[in-house]
Amino acid sequence: MAPKYDLDTIRHSTAHLMAQAITRLWPQLNIQLGIGPVIDTGFYYDIDMEYTLNEEDLPKIEEMMKKIIKEGLEIKRGVFTKKAAIDYFSQKNQELKIDLINSFPEDEEISYYTQGEFLDLCRGPHVEKTSDLPPFFKLLSIAGAYWRGDSKNKMLQRVYAACYDDKAALKEHLTFLEEAKKRDHRKLGKELDLFLFDKVAPGSPFFQPKGAFVYNSLVEFIRRIYSKFDYKEVITPQILDSELWHTSGHYENYKENMFFTNVEERQFAVKPMNCPCHMLMYSHFKYSYRELPLRYADFGRLHRNEASGSLAGLTRVRTFCQDDAHIFLPVDKIQDEILSLMDMFFTCYDHFGFKDVRVNLSTRPEKKVGDDSVWDLAEEALISALKKSGREFSIKEGDGAFYGPKIDLEISDAIKRYHQLGTIQLDFQLPMRFDLKFTNQKGEEEQPVVIHRALLGSLERFFGIYLEHVAGAYPFWLAPEQAVIVPVRNESHLEFAQKLCSDLLKKGFRVRVDDRNESLGKKTRETQKAKVPFMMVIGDREMETNTVSIREYGAADSNTLSFDELIERFSELDKEKVPLKLRD
Amino acid sequence: MAPKYDLDTIRHSTAHLMAQAITRLWPQLNIQLGIGPVIDTGFYYDIDMEYTLNEEDLPKIEEMMKKIIKEGLEIKRGVFTKKAAIDYFSQKNQELKIDLINSFPEDEEISYYTQGEFLDLCRGPHVEKTSDLPPFFKLLSIAGAYWRGDSKNKMLQRVYAACYDDKAALKEHLTFLEEAKKRDHRKLGKELDLFLFDKVAPGSPFFQPKGAFVYNSLVEFIRRIYSKFDYKEVITPQILDSELWHTSGHYENYKENMFFTNVEERQFAVKPMNCPCHMLMYSHFKYSYRELPLRYADFGRLHRNEASGSLAGLTRVRTFCQDDAHIFLPVDKIQDEILSLMDMFFTCYDHFGFKDVRVNLSTRPEKKVGDDSVWDLAEEALISALKKSGREFSIKEGDGAFYGPKIDLEISDAIKRYHQLGTIQLDFQLPMRFDLKFTNQKGEEEQPVVIHRALLGSLERFFGIYLEHVAGAYPFWLAPEQAVIVPVRNESHLEFAQKLCSDLLKKGFRVRVDDRNESLGKKTRETQKAKVPFMMVIGDREMETNTVSIREYGAADSNTLSFDELIERFSELDKEKVPLKLRD
Repeated sequence: MAPKYDLDTIRHSTAHLMAQAITRLWPQLNIQLGIGPVIDTGFYYDIDMEYTLNEEDLPKIEEMMKKIIKEGLEIKRGVFTKKAAIDYFSQKNQELKIDLINSFPEDEEISYYTQGEFLDLCRGPHVEKTSDLPPFFKLLSIAGAYWRGDSKNKMLQRVYAACYDDKAALKEHLTFLEEAKKRDHRKLGKELDLFLFDKVAPGSPFFQPKGAFVYNSLVEFIRRIYSKFDYKEVITPQILDSELWHTSGHYENYKENMFFTNVEERQFAVKPMNCPCHMLMYSHFKYSYRELPLRYADFGRLHRNEASGSLAGLTRVRTFCQDDAHIFLPVDKIQDEILSLMDMFFTCYDHFGFKDVRVNLSTRPEKKVGDDSVWDLAEEALISALKKSGREFSIKEGDGAFYGPKIDLEISDAIKRYHQLGTIQLDFQLPMRFDLKFTNQKGEEEQPVVIHRALLGSLERFFGIYLEHVAGAYPFWLAPEQAVIVPVRNESHLEFAQKLCSDLLKKGFRVRVDDRNESLGKKTRETQKAKVPFMMVIGDREMETNTVSIREYGAADSNTLSFDELIERFSELDKEKVPLKLRD
Repeated sequence: MAPKYDLDTIRHSTAHLMAQAITRLWPQLNIQLGIGPVIDTGFYYDIDMEYTLNEEDLPKIEEMMKKIIKEGLEIKRGVFTKKAAIDYFSQKNQELKIDLINSFPEDEEISYYTQGEFLDLCRGPHVEKTSDLPPFFKLLSIAGAYWRGDSKNKMLQRVYAACYDDKAALKEHLTFLEEAKKRDHRKLGKELDLFLFDKVAPGSPFFQPKGAFVYNSLVEFIRRIYSKFDYKEVITPQILDSELWHTSGHYENYKENMFFTNVEERQFAVKPMNCPCHMLMYSHFKYSYRELPLRYADFGRLHRNEASGSLAGLTRVRTFCQDDAHIFLPVDKIQDEILSLMDMFFTCYDHFGFKDVRVNLSTRPEKKVGDDSVWDLAEEALISALKKSGREFSIKEGDGAFYGPKIDLEISDAIKRYHQLGTIQLDFQLPMRFDLKFTNQKGEEEQPVVIHRALLGSLERFFGIYLEHVAGAYPFWLAPEQAVIVPVRNESHLEFAQKLCSDLLKKGFRVRVDDRNESLGKKTRETQKAKVPFMMVIGDREMETNTVSIREYGAADSNTLSFDELIERFSELDKEKVPLKLRD
């Protein structure tokens, strides 16, 4: 069936349909309607009513919506003068609508649509009758939202709905939502004992032992990458005199996001970024061109003052570390460096299973620092490096920062959501502000370019993204627990299990024996729930044959392995600590 | 020769001798004398004069002192009334002395000593004549010091001197000072490119790549120790609501040392300690006795507001990490835990070459929290654990904190200076303040005891202490560079050297080729100066025989090794990453 209406029209009319259904279901209440716009995947409607809607009301509303569809009410457009509109809505006690109307120009004609007893202000267009609406919608959730998005206004109830013109599309979206919910890192973080939050530190995760293990292993992973690409890790202070932030320009441009503290009549700021520390370190020494590129890496903890209302799980936090580095280099080394960076980034993303990567190059904006000749050189270097890398990329003309062009890298996760991870940002400004120099081949003083670059970005955010990507099932090399050994009966099999465990621990594997007096079934379920990569069951047969029965997470069956085969398998898997192409 | 005078008398008289020498050397200046007390290793004298003394003046003063000794001036005691004293010193423009006299009681008899033309206020006693003074003194340095130690007063010049009654003792002390100076970690930190400071961050080191390597290796070392003793590392926030610090008692007792910042009308503090974070994490869960002891380790960065004047190198800083842990356990597990901790501490200290360790146990003070019965149990447990450990220990009665008894461990370094590293602090209070519980064997709720413990203490401070202990010559496993390969002539030997280097890098060793066009002599000297554990020279003979000529740092001679022997030697040395007794 060719669509008679476009999807936005259908969504918009379905929003009216929902509002009408709600007014019918609670006729005794003065239900004030706010606005009900179309969004990417459906629509929402903000309403104010004395009854607080809950999840259980949603099917009732849906049912009423379907009933109204069946009624086939005609949807008709009409117009008001502003005065008539105010009179009408005053009579109906619709203060939100009056507030809206008051913001319209005095002489504007105000359109409305009616369907049966229901009337709503609207620009349209709409479908012709309620029975034209396809039933491919689902009410999803209720959230609080300030009227007109202003926290000084009243909090309304916002009902979100998915809405499509096609049954399969709705189903696909609902499956996606379900999958996203299952993978929600906040939920998995709790279930797998990875991290927690407490009200004394908004946006500041407490990593529990398993989470801290994964976190530290990510740092170690990055360090192994660094050792292959000639990075030098440094450790820098976190609280520095505002003087430094004036020099760097952060005080001027980023003050609102910084935490300040006063000591002995000096003002200090908690660092939101590492860059000024690295500029300062560079400025303490003299360099020759032979010593460049110099690559300072830093896992320093950063703090940024994000509004408490915007904080969410690990993806929007107030404190985090980046796999941050600053590269000091002559302008004529940019191309080689970018090529090497692309190699590093893709090797790394590939290793985490991110095969679909978008590369965007942002070029000079109108307002900028640095000579056009330097921009020319830099942009050409970036473009030819990207071409040489053999990767597709898009150019965002004029989208660079005023201090230099940049490359962003976005990965698509297991359920096809894109997240920006990597960034490569050229900077012509900081070297000027810190008056950085090196001696070039002619023996002259020259200003280096600085590249800010992050590979995974904020480790906290990456922790969240990757946890969702693997849905909590970490690969062997990263799993806080690599295997759980389950004796069938403690009386007969515990000792053998403990010996196996101690042998594996000595080899450096992370295993434990589940020695609780619980049924095999319960232990199996809990090991599965904890998403441990391997479970090994030890019973009579294993003891008799001196073997191990091993079952991989998610697999239906077990394998039987000798101890040597087991060690070989585990050792092979553990090698994934280092990406294949970087192994010696 | 049996001493006629005690050492303090000799030092005191030598202080007068120095003051007299200075007044003779600058007769045209009004030299105001402050005080000149005896100290552990000699004396100092604070003086105020318009000429600023420098190092080159010290031998001149010493010479004059020796001249006055030869003069054999009689040293005579006299007394003043307070009024006569003030009159005398007013006439001599000695305002500092007048200030001193003014602080004496009105009717006190004021004694003075004269020797020749020189008169000084003094309680005595003194030697009888200047020729009784042994010439075993040395003027060491000049420093600034506020009159009466008050920064509101004038800054005086303080001249420090070593002074003994025995030639050998003076020599020993001077050798010690020379050795301490050579080992000064601030000096070594610069020479070996380990760390730097900048005025924008007082007391906050910037670790350069080599320093960061050592720092991170210390963390990794501790982590390896932790894995053997069942510690669980966590990562906790750094900026937390003051509410938490009220709960923990830090706000009440430690506020002056904390950095505060305000966000959205809430007051937050930058953490000076990890303990409250760990208490909070514990309080999020329920524990059974089977899960205790629970050991949370944390390398969280701490900040403490130390007065800028007291900051010194890495030993007195504003920001540092500790190898910090908190152990939650039932009171009846204290003894086992302490025994295990003693094992851990001694294993670790021994590994760093600290063989001489003092153990001090501090018991309950008068003012304390917790029942006497709990203190009885705890102290008995500590004493019997210490006895069982077979280590000598001292008891400091009544020296414990109000919240629990403690054990301190001090190590003696290579030049016999004691430094406190470890601390084991029982705490009965924090579990109460955070209302911590566990379910005991009877199924009842019980309060755990908390043990705060640090092994090396502040890693920054330990970095400084250990750097001085090894005088910059790190052991192989900890050295940022383990070996430097020096080709005799680049034209002939560079390629072979590079191949060797790349083979060693692949094996995970930290080596580099010194490929500069400099003489072998210069390269050798610089490698020695950088205190790299090994230098390998590659010349014709090595290439012909496919061997390596290797020289250990500090050794006079080289050895010739095959590549396999080299790998074996390096691998053996690298195993020292883990203390021998903890290796599997």
